Order: sequence, then structure tokens, then C-alpha cells
Amino acid sequence: MRSRIYLDHAATSWPKPESVYRAMDDYARESGAPAGRGSYREAIEVERTIDQTRQAIAQLIEADDPRQILFTYSGTDSLTLAIRGLVKPGDHVITTVCDHNSVLRPLHYLEQQQDVAVTRIGADAEGRILPEDLADSILPNTSLIAMVHASNVTGALQPAAKVGEIARERGIPFLLDAAQTLGHLPVSVRDFQCDMLAAPGHKGLLGPTGTGILYLSEEMSKRLMPVRMGGTGSQSERDQQPETLPDKFESGNLNVPGIVGLHAGLRYIQERGIEEIAEHEGTLTQQLRQGLADLQSIQLYGGDGPSVGVLSLNVQSQEPQETAVLLDQIGSIQARAGFHCAPMMHDSLNTRQLGGTLRLSVGPFNTAQQIQTTLQVLQQIADL
Amino acid sequence: MRSRIYLDHAATSWPKPESVYRAMDDYARESGAPAGRGSYREAIEVERTIDQTRQAIAQLIEADDPRQILFTYSGTDSLTLAIRGLVKPGDHVITTVCDHNSVLRPLHYLEQQQDVAVTRIGADAEGRILPEDLADSILPNTSLIAMVHASNVTGALQPAAKVGEIARERGIPFLLDAAQTLGHLPVSVRDFQCDMLAAPGHKGLLGPTGTGILYLSEEMSKRLMPVRMGGTGSQSERDQQPETLPDKFESGNLNVPGIVGLHAGLRYIQERGIEEIAEHEGTLTQQLRQGLADLQSIQLYGGDGPSVGVLSLNVQSQEPQETAVLLDQIGSIQARAGFHCAPMMHDSLNTRQLGGTLRLSVGPFNTAQQIQTTLQVLQQIADL
Repeated sequence: MRSRIYLDHAATSWPKPESVYRAMDDYARESGAPAGRGSYREAIEVERTIDQTRQAIAQLIEADDPRQILFTYSGTDSLTLAIRGLVKPGDHVITTVCDHNSVLRPLHYLEQQQDVAVTRIGADAEGRILPEDLADSILPNTSLIAMVHASNVTGALQPAAKVGEIARERGIPFLLDAAQTLGHLPVSVRDFQCDMLAAPGHKGLLGPTGTGILYLSEEMSKRLMPVRMGGTGSQSERDQQPETLPDKFESGNLNVPGIVGLHAGLRYIQERGIEEIAEHEGTLTQQLRQGLADLQSIQLYGGDGPSVGVLSLNVQSQEPQETAVLLDQIGSIQARAGFHCAPMMHDSLNTRQLGGTLRLSVGPFNTAQQIQTTLQVLQQIADL
Repeated sequence: MRSRIYLDHAATSWPKPESVYRAMDDYARESGAPAGRGSYREAIEVERTIDQTRQAIAQLIEADDPRQILFTYSGTDSLTLAIRGLVKPGDHVITTVCDHNSVLRPLHYLEQQQDVAVTRIGADAEGRILPEDLADSILPNTSLIAMVHASNVTGALQPAAKVGEIARERGIPFLLDAAQTLGHLPVSVRDFQCDMLAAPGHKGLLGPTGTGILYLSEEMSKRLMPVRMGGTGSQSERDQQPETLPDKFESGNLNVPGIVGLHAGLRYIQERGIEEIAEHEGTLTQQLRQGLADLQSIQLYGGDGPSVGVLSLNVQSQEPQETAVLLDQIGSIQARAGFHCAPMMHDSLNTRQLGGTLRLSVGPFNTAQQIQTTLQVLQQIADL
């Protein structure tokens, strides 16, 4: 097996902790039981693991009650539930140009088809909004503020605490898309005063794809309509969706091997400590950012403000797709090229013409040596 | 590890073929790449596996084009997309009392909240509908016929080909829920003339939970609105959902380890042959059914008509939950007790009062010896 330098953590985490692989394989071979639907020993054991996973997430994000944590298919699935479960025809929704298509596309649809008005707050050259712009755009019928916590293009952290404060003051539900932050740095629904928080399970949380989570405040869990309805293993004698949590929102079989892997990922994060992970990734990002600033012919986007370990660049006027292929060919360095499903960001960065950016994103197992090699290979590509 | 007699295949398949475990673990450790979003070698390889999985499913169900196969979170997720993507306020929908809550609950919601009328066709004592009842219930505004292919309580096969013929003649979209049949016996969208077919990936198809599939005819793929919208890795420069297949309906990261496992499950089915699996499971079901008929004090539901390897029983007036616990304690036999998320069936079977039924369901790795042991333990429980 070749030695990969994996710098695509903004897409998904790899490698996972060894315990994640083992837990998933052990579950598949030895248990295989589905969630919430059996009375035999393995089924009861699975139920316990799922409960523990809910507890671990609740603890990580400082939620009051594990039942406020829902398991979904993906971050996108969580956002669909949050947005389509809440927004009604005639409503006004605020989002930002920094947001991902997982927020922008459902809102575009609601705007076109369901008489929903959408305001998209602009960003500065680093890819960061101003909270006052957001406050100024609130209307009497604003029913939701949906904002990404950190840009998946530049890594810029948005002023989430300030936005949460504004939302709470004005009584507007605040949905935070923590796809690029949860598991990478401390994220607290209490500190950010958010009513809903969506994230995939396979990025910072180190689980596999096919997992997502949604936190709902008590009020939101009552107000939201489920999108997916069906069997819940509870109240099965009735053909009505149950109102109890989490069943109201968890119809159909859960991705149990995925949740078992996520459980192991969360334990790894608990043991290593979220602060330690944030510091490790912050140091590597700093090394990468400084190294890139020193390189000739590299255009680095974003700036020195608060950010996560995600950054975008272009090598002269080379198409980012070509740079990505060269990185893989020369150094087995795995990065991502294109628009990163965040189309509006590229107007802020002026990168639409070139086909987007080359994105590098670090994770908990990257090393200073890998960053050094990456900088050398990028220099080599720039010199070609 | 204790020796389990697993007879809960109607809930999920276990064990999986060894190749499923290996493929999932190899992917997790050595690749880890997400679908459709990368230009490095592992990402391209993943894309190929996903394409092959689509092809294998298309071949299995005799669909014209692999792009008509969508990957979803679960059978329930597939049904949500089919039902909510198609049905509009003011429509009339036909389903049956044999259907699962994954069909009944979304329809109940549409009935209560969106001015949709729903007709539920009754079943005979075996749990089978009459096609003429269904034909008689068609109204000018009927926009969907949604029917389970085989009851997950009695295993009774519904007259799918006849219903498909009626639906095609009357120009009404026909959605078949193949949760209990796909991978267990030949299922052809051509023979059944169905416009949509939904199934989980983890039952007969031998993949893991967290996977589902939906087949859409060309017309349905145009008419259906996606429920989940977001990043597709395609047309990422636009904040509008793409219209191309399968991207229109596959927003967010797919469950790649799940699809990799599903791919291995499908290869197992191809190699062993669907007819051979159907015959194996049919023989075991016959053995079980005959053995139960000979036992004192066992009430067996359903009848001798065409069925899959799923059957329901009760031991005298014992609550089925108690029977399930005893089966596990005495013989490590894993069955399912309760309503099986099919509430209306229990009025047809008159099993509501007792708390439903005890369900036994066979799979491709069960043996005649296991069935023999199960019959002995059931006799023992009846004699307690």
C-alpha cells in the first residue's frame, strides 16, 4: 500500500482510529442486530451502544438531554429535516453566501416553489460575515437563521456566538451547520445559543459515511415535522408517527454499523480531548498557512482570522483540478479541487472563472512532516 | 461466542457472507474515500464500485438503466422519497392493510395534513388482497398505488403482477415495497410493471443497515421532486439541485462502506443464484410450516398460498414477547415479537389483543437442523 498524505478532512476523515475499524467489524460479525426492535441479547446490547453514542454527543455539544440528539443519514439529511421540517410558505429565512449547497439548495427550492423569501448575507474577502448585516436583515416573518459555522472553502469561522445572541434576542430559531467544526474544536449549543445543530458523523467525529446527527432544542423538537416517517419499533400498533423523542424523527432502520463506528470515534475524541485535537490541527494549519505565504506563485485565499484547518489556494493560473491530480501523482497527496459545493463563496473570493480552488484540510492524524512534504510538492508544481 | 439460531431475517440479514465483512473492512482501512467528489485514485476506485453496485441491482430487478437505481438511507427513506416526492394535496392514494408503517404512516400524515384521500384495501385471513378490490377503488384522482410485495407478518405474497397490470391499464403509478422479497426471490420491475420499487439494502440483499434503494422509471424520475437536497459533487457552481440522474436524488455523502458491503452481498447472490436462494428458503419455510402445523398448542397464521420465508404464530395465549424471550433463553433462537410495524394486519389476523405475533423468518444461511431445533424448543415452550 502506498503512503498517502490525506489532506481532505473537510470531505471526510481518514484514517479513522483503529478502534473504529474494529468496533464496526466486530459488530458486523458478532452482533448484526438492528436498533430498537429486538428482545434478544445482541439487540439489547446494540440499544445500549446507541444510547451511549447519544450521550457522548450530548456531552460534547453540551445538550441537556441525549434524546435531543437524532441520528440521520448525513449532515445533509440533518439539514433537510431542520429546514423542511420548520419552514412554511410565506416565511423569510436568512442564510449566508458562505453556506454549503446542503443549505443553499433546499432554500433555493423553497424560494422558487413555496413562496419563501431568502436573504443571503455577504462575506468579506476572508469569507466571514458581519453579525450586524445579519441583524439588519431580520424581518417580522423571519422564521429561521441557517448558518455554517466555518466555511468549507476558506475555513473562516463565522461569529456564531454573536449570531446566536441576536437570534435569541429576536426570538428566531438558529440552525448551525457544524460540518467543519464538530470534532475539530469545542462546539457548544449552550454557548452559541443554537436551537438546532447539524453535522455529519464522518468528518470531525471520525465515524463512517452514512451517519449524521441533528440536535434539536426542546421547543424545536415539538415544532418540527418529521420528513421521514415509518416504522420506529415503538407504538407499532398504530399507523401514526409517534410524538416521543427520538422516535418521532428516527423512522426506519438506523445505520447501526455506522453508529457503532461513530461511538468509537467519539470515545477517541473524549480520550484525546477536543482541546488537544484543536491545538494539533491549529498548529498544522498555521505551518501550512505560513509555508504557503512564503511560496512563490501561490494565491492563498482567506486570511489570518479565526479558522479551522481548511484552506484554499490556487497555483498561478493553473486549474485547481490539474493541481489536485499533480499532487496525487507526485506525492500521493490527496486534496480536493473545485467549488466544494459552496457556489456563492467563489464570487466573494473571485475564483469562479478558474473553476474554484484547491482545498487542503487537516485532521487529527496528520503530521508536521506531511505538511512539510506537501509544501515541497506544491513548490515543485509551481515551478513546472 | 454462543451458537445463535438467527430467524429474524425479515428485520435484517445475519450473518452476512464473509465477503461483505471483508469488503467493508478493507474499504474502511485502505480507501475511506467518499463518493463522487475526489480526483485521487481511491476516490475513482470507489466511484467504480458504486457504479457496479447500481448495475448489479439494475440487472437483478431488470431495470433498463443503472441510473434509475438510487441509493438511499433505508427502505423507509426510499418510500418517503417515492410517496412525498409524488403525492400532491387533493390526490387519492391506494394502499393495503398488509402494508408496513413505512407506507401507512406517511400516508396517514398526508391524509391528516395535506388533504390526501387514502383507501386501504382489506386482506383475507392469509393476509392477501384481491386485485379486483383494488381495481374497484380507483378514482379519477388516484395518483399512486403503494403496495407491499409480501407481508412482513405472514409472508403472504400479494398479486403484484396483476396489480401492476391494473395500474398500467389505468395509467396510475405503481410503487412496490419489496422489503421482504428482493434478494429472496426473483423480482422484476418489467414483469410487475412497477414504476417505483423500494427496498432496504440490508435484508435480502445482504448488505448492512444504513442502505436502501429506490428504482424509478424514466417518467417517475422526471416527475418526482427530491426530498433531500444539497451537495451532489456535480454542478457545484450552482445553488440549484441538478436534474441529472442519479444526482437529482442523491444529495449529501452516500453511505460508502454500506454500499461497498451491499456490492459484496449482491455478488454473493449473483454467484449462488436467486433461484437457488429462493428454493433453499422455500424448503426451510415448508419444513417450518409443516412442523408447526403438527405441534400442539401452536396457532399458525397465514396459509398455504404463495409466500416468502416469513411466518407468524402464537403459543396458546402466551404473549409473543414472552415466547421470544424463552426462545432466546432456551435455544439462543432469535425471533421477533409484536406488531412488526404493520398495525392493520393484526385486525385481519385477530392478533391485536395478544400483542401481535411471534415471527420467524429464514435466510440463505439457515439450515434444516436449525429449523428442527427451533421446532423442538417451541414444543418445549408450549409444554411449560
